Amino acid sequence: MSTDVLRTADGWWVVRDTRAVRIDTEAVTTAELLADRAAVREAAVSGGTGTPVADLVTLSPVTTPCRVVAQMVNYRSHARDSGFTGDIPPAFFRKASGSVSGPHDDIVRPSHVRFLDYEIELGLVMGAPLPVGTVVEEEDLPAHIAGLVITNDISARDVQLTKTQFYESKSYPTFTPTGPYLSLLEPEDFAHLLDLRLKLSVNGDLRQDRTLADMIVRPAQALTLLARFQALDPGDLLLTGTPGGTALKAPHKAIEKIGALLPPAVKWKAFFKSQARNPHYLGQGDLITATIATPDGRIDLGEQRTAVTDAK
Amino acid sequence: MSTDVLRTADGWWVVRDTRAVRIDTEAVTTAELLADRAAVREAAVSGGTGTPVADLVTLSPVTTPCRVVAQMVNYRSHARDSGFTGDIPPAFFRKASGSVSGPHDDIVRPSHVRFLDYEIELGLVMGAPLPVGTVVEEEDLPAHIAGLVITNDISARDVQLTKTQFYESKSYPTFTPTGPYLSLLEPEDFAHLLDLRLKLSVNGDLRQDRTLADMIVRPAQALTLLARFQALDPGDLLLTGTPGGTALKAPHKAIEKIGALLPPAVKWKAFFKSQARNPHYLGQGDLITATIATPDGRIDLGEQRTAVTDAK
Repeated sequence: MSTDVLRTADGWWVVRDTRAVRIDTEAVTTAELLADRAAVREAAVSGGTGTPVADLVTLSPVTTPCRVVAQMVNYRSHARDSGFTGDIPPAFFRKASGSVSGPHDDIVRPSHVRFLDYEIELGLVMGAPLPVGTVVEEEDLPAHIAGLVITNDISARDVQLTKTQFYESKSYPTFTPTGPYLSLLEPEDFAHLLDLRLKLSVNGDLRQDRTLADMIVRPAQALTLLARFQALDPGDLLLTGTPGGTALKAPHKAIEKIGALLPPAVKWKAFFKSQARNPHYLGQGDLITATIATPDGRIDLGEQRTAVTDAK
Repeated sequence: MSTDVLRTADGWWVVRDTRAVRIDTEAVTTAELLADRAAVREAAVSGGTGTPVADLVTLSPVTTPCRVVAQMVNYRSHARDSGFTGDIPPAFFRKASGSVSGPHDDIVRPSHVRFLDYEIELGLVMGAPLPVGTVVEEEDLPAHIAGLVITNDISARDVQLTKTQFYESKSYPTFTPTGPYLSLLEPEDFAHLLDLRLKLSVNGDLRQDRTLADMIVRPAQALTLLARFQALDPGDLLLTGTPGGTALKAPHKAIEKIGALLPPAVKWKAFFKSQARNPHYLGQGDLITATIATPDGRIDLGEQRTAVTDAK
């Protein structure tokens, strides 16, 4: 059974039903909290009645700076949305950890961004150093992954597509809402990962709804591939890709091939003109709700609720 | 006049002609050294005769972990090599700082990489925090940039092109040789940046040779664009792009447009078949020498000498 932890401005808490019990720890960073599991366990079994969770202002349970690495196209349904056919080479990119924001903070759309999109993703929080060259088997996962969080990989599509490298488009401040809970897993919880269901709604309209069974490169293989070149440390965050249902849909294959013959500026102008009629991009006042849980509630990362606002 | 600093396993040194004088400092990281400029100045004017530089085993003067950010296609000559026409949207990507290696360390080619390439780049070492939203003017540069280093943005082209995101292909350990010198600049040195000439040879064959006058997005504008989304801290490293002359040359425009009509796997198979006949890619035993300096020697980042070796 997982243990849900949340963070506020003045410390760390264990969630028990609708109440939160303070963890007696000096930890400031997520890595420090992970090194003080005894304090977490103590709070989980203590006799304290705690505080209603609803009364707490929760921050991201992943503290920054940390490494934020993300997997590109990693659900079959998203690959179809994105116009991929055939094999997709597994790829990673970085997000600035300055983009991490709280689970109820506003998402701020920079004034030069027109096409703002959502991507619910399961976030893996590392529990141990992962040196370059590590090979991670399924049964090793509990030794590497301390817990899970909801993340939203907010993406400025007009920046992303024209610049080709994803880094800037996904790294503006508030572009990685994280939390509310860091769900610390027990070894037996890992057998239930594929039952996790990701759901994201915008203004109550369900846009994304898939389980991890739709995932292409699963966590053990992802960590092995990442460790070919990138070391990780406790508290680092790996975003594992988003399922289908984002606002962005790739243009029809025939149109894309004609587009490939045009100069890039002409191609993008035509594409963005078509996207201007797409009502699914995010705008001022939109409310996003996101959940990730198993059907039986064994793992439940809470509910993330974020509103979109335009930069002043 | 700039001050050249180098690092060894047991500390920091100021270079005076062919000799190095130890800096009396507790600094371990580059950021800590930059905060102790008094100690650097003291070593620079001290009466000590020091040690021959040639007797020292120099490490990267940029310590890790730190942020390593790089500019994509940022010299006109490289843009031509890469087949770009028209405006190139300025773009950034991240390299793992675990890729930083010393100025005389071997570059290790992973066994799955066939097309290993070099990219000499001027590295800017940050001297002050750069918050998101900062606008950097030319005259502000001395307040932001502490110094300069030679870097080589080693690139696994087969990984880079098939995965589209540059992060992995440029992040393997030893893929960012850095140094030998961290050249700490005085405010008046910044007026001479455009005179810096980058030269890279492989086995004595000059492959890259351009001044910063060929650069597209210059440092002040680059920092302004980067600060739209990414904060930096002292000791962080910005690689500013490479001039023409890399092993990789884009295929002829007509061939590229036919390629765009093919499935990616077929396109890359044909492209890499053509690259297999290109003798300029790096292999076991190749020796790379790289220098960056102004013609008058006012700024001179030393000579980087690295050999290529295959992973065991």
